Amino acid sequence: MVNLDEIFKPIYFKDGQMFWIDTRYIPWEEIWRHTKDYNRVAQAIKDMEIRGAPAIGVAAAFGMALAAIYSNARNIDELLKDLEKAKEVLSKTRPTAVNLFWALDRVMQAALKASESGDVEKVREVVLNEAYAIQREDIEQNVRMGKIGAELIEDGDVILTHCNTGALATAGYGTALGVIRAAWEQGKRIEVIATETRPVAQGARLTVWELVREGIPAKLISDTMVGYLMSKKKISKVFLGADRILLSGHFANKIGTYQIAVLAHYHKVPFYTVAPTSTIDPKRTLDQLVIEERSPEEVRRCPYPYEKIYVTVPSIDVYNPAFDVTPPELVTGIVTEEGVAYPPYWVSLREIMRKKGYQI
Amino acid sequence: MVNLDEIFKPIYFKDGQMFWIDTRYIPWEEIWRHTKDYNRVAQAIKDMEIRGAPAIGVAAAFGMALAAIYSNARNIDELLKDLEKAKEVLSKTRPTAVNLFWALDRVMQAALKASESGDVEKVREVVLNEAYAIQREDIEQNVRMGKIGAELIEDGDVILTHCNTGALATAGYGTALGVIRAAWEQGKRIEVIATETRPVAQGARLTVWELVREGIPAKLISDTMVGYLMSKKKISKVFLGADRILLSGHFANKIGTYQIAVLAHYHKVPFYTVAPTSTIDPKRTLDQLVIEERSPEEVRRCPYPYEKIYVTVPSIDVYNPAFDVTPPELVTGIVTEEGVAYPPYWVSLREIMRKKGYQI
Repeated sequence: MVNLDEIFKPIYFKDGQMFWIDTRYIPWEEIWRHTKDYNRVAQAIKDMEIRGAPAIGVAAAFGMALAAIYSNARNIDELLKDLEKAKEVLSKTRPTAVNLFWALDRVMQAALKASESGDVEKVREVVLNEAYAIQREDIEQNVRMGKIGAELIEDGDVILTHCNTGALATAGYGTALGVIRAAWEQGKRIEVIATETRPVAQGARLTVWELVREGIPAKLISDTMVGYLMSKKKISKVFLGADRILLSGHFANKIGTYQIAVLAHYHKVPFYTVAPTSTIDPKRTLDQLVIEERSPEEVRRCPYPYEKIYVTVPSIDVYNPAFDVTPPELVTGIVTEEGVAYPPYWVSLREIMRKKGYQI
Repeated sequence: MVNLDEIFKPIYFKDGQMFWIDTRYIPWEEIWRHTKDYNRVAQAIKDMEIRGAPAIGVAAAFGMALAAIYSNARNIDELLKDLEKAKEVLSKTRPTAVNLFWALDRVMQAALKASESGDVEKVREVVLNEAYAIQREDIEQNVRMGKIGAELIEDGDVILTHCNTGALATAGYGTALGVIRAAWEQGKRIEVIATETRPVAQGARLTVWELVREGIPAKLISDTMVGYLMSKKKISKVFLGADRILLSGHFANKIGTYQIAVLAHYHKVPFYTVAPTSTIDPKRTLDQLVIEERSPEEVRRCPYPYEKIYVTVPSIDVYNPAFDVTPPELVTGIVTEEGVAYPPYWVSLREIMRKKGYQI
């Protein structure tokens, strides 16, 4: 059984401050940061000290809490204005992960509802409580997804994963890596193949760190080796995360996800994405999906903390899309805390969202 | 017109020594090495100071020349024994590129034939001349392949290439990069997309260096971005090299080639490999193909000359196949100095080899 209190939390709130582990220094150092300033939280998201769609959502929620606590507002209107400003700043950090906007909207809605009381202190309290709830629910959902997803994993499976979807990408436990963790905790004999995930190398740095900590048998590969291993039948299943899932079943995730999906399809390897319903975007359509283009220096240089070292001629042009979009026809199933959605996704994802109270 | 004398040669013979550029330090430094010792040549191939199938062949041939020149043999038998020993040492450097074995066999055959004269000095001379011939022919063939392959390139094409197939991978000019160079020299407006090619990053280090030197418009991408760019229709054609081509049309090339081929097939992007006939192995079949597994440290660390820097937990297991095999059904055409082979390759490649005098 998973004890939620004992679980490793990369982001937490204590003594009026938000604390987080700076994932850029993992696996070399465990550097913890803390702040009372939501602008600093925004910076941490932008610079990828905090990354992973659910983790970004949790950090943004605590950022709103900091804005509420340290606002000088003396009445409801001033406080709501300050919260709106914080929401604006936090929302401009990264465009693709929907959890960010979902968390900000959820906290803001709670603040607006509480404001009807007319009690400023009450609103501050509600905002902090909502952030805590988002954190707790995310962990709970991950544990539930772990259980649900682990049923898809059999003894002897070799599971390919991409980027980092573990504790470090969430409030704790992980999404796709949570499923892997759950299967391992159930005693299933599995092996994990982690891709390096250039340019930022979240696979080599973060996923490998988590797997080694847990003692789960694992191998690291360069991103060039996925097809080769599939052709040699050395990969049984793919489990990875999502930054935004549309009701059509299209999903945005770390760059490289799409080509893994094409390769899995070609080699008939089951391909699953794992994400809480907070990652499902019930409003937007494919043409409204924004793919973040990040600094070209990420592609030209080594990953953190050696980000000053070039691997190429510094003047070369680059593409650096941080995400890509995988179409539903390449996806075997979508694991959520409400169950596994199967094709046709435009039906199954709507059913799942209705269970969460969405009117769609 | 290409002037063969003025062309950049990464390996050459002068004053009784073999000189070569140490490709591990490119693009940061141009370090030239030289030796009179064939064991040092073997080391340079093993450690990838010299890499790329045709370049390995040329270096091995000059290695044989060094063995012949500096052998203490006083008669034919002693010299042939020394040459056999050198051949043995040089052949054990890298298993996948067939050009290595082809060049060693060719030099040895020439030595054996010359030994009929009974003149030791004559044999030494013939060996050196054969090495020179292999170097010259490789450059000539590359220029011819460039011309032939450039006909497949149209104005406005965006060409994806993988690893390095340029001057640095050959005796000069390049195979796939030679085709790109030729199209550019013909005034075609093209753009090149170079993959980083982890783990050794020959794309980011060598191909980008060559493209920037030539002023050919180019962009670098991480190996995770190929599928995304194809899905966005930003790649018109793929041109890359080969380390060994079987008569069936299967070919071994740098790890990552196979998955690019699958992605090109899925997105209906024409996919060409470019290699001289010395890369075609008329004897071996698929089950006899040896894929070199290199040191796990390559995957765990940054590319040269930062190879001491880890990008992951140092204890993690890895896979590190240096090559993969692409099946003929994914290949649009094979460009050789004798023309373009098209499917069915088991017919067209035999025709090409017959033109070169092989009885098959």
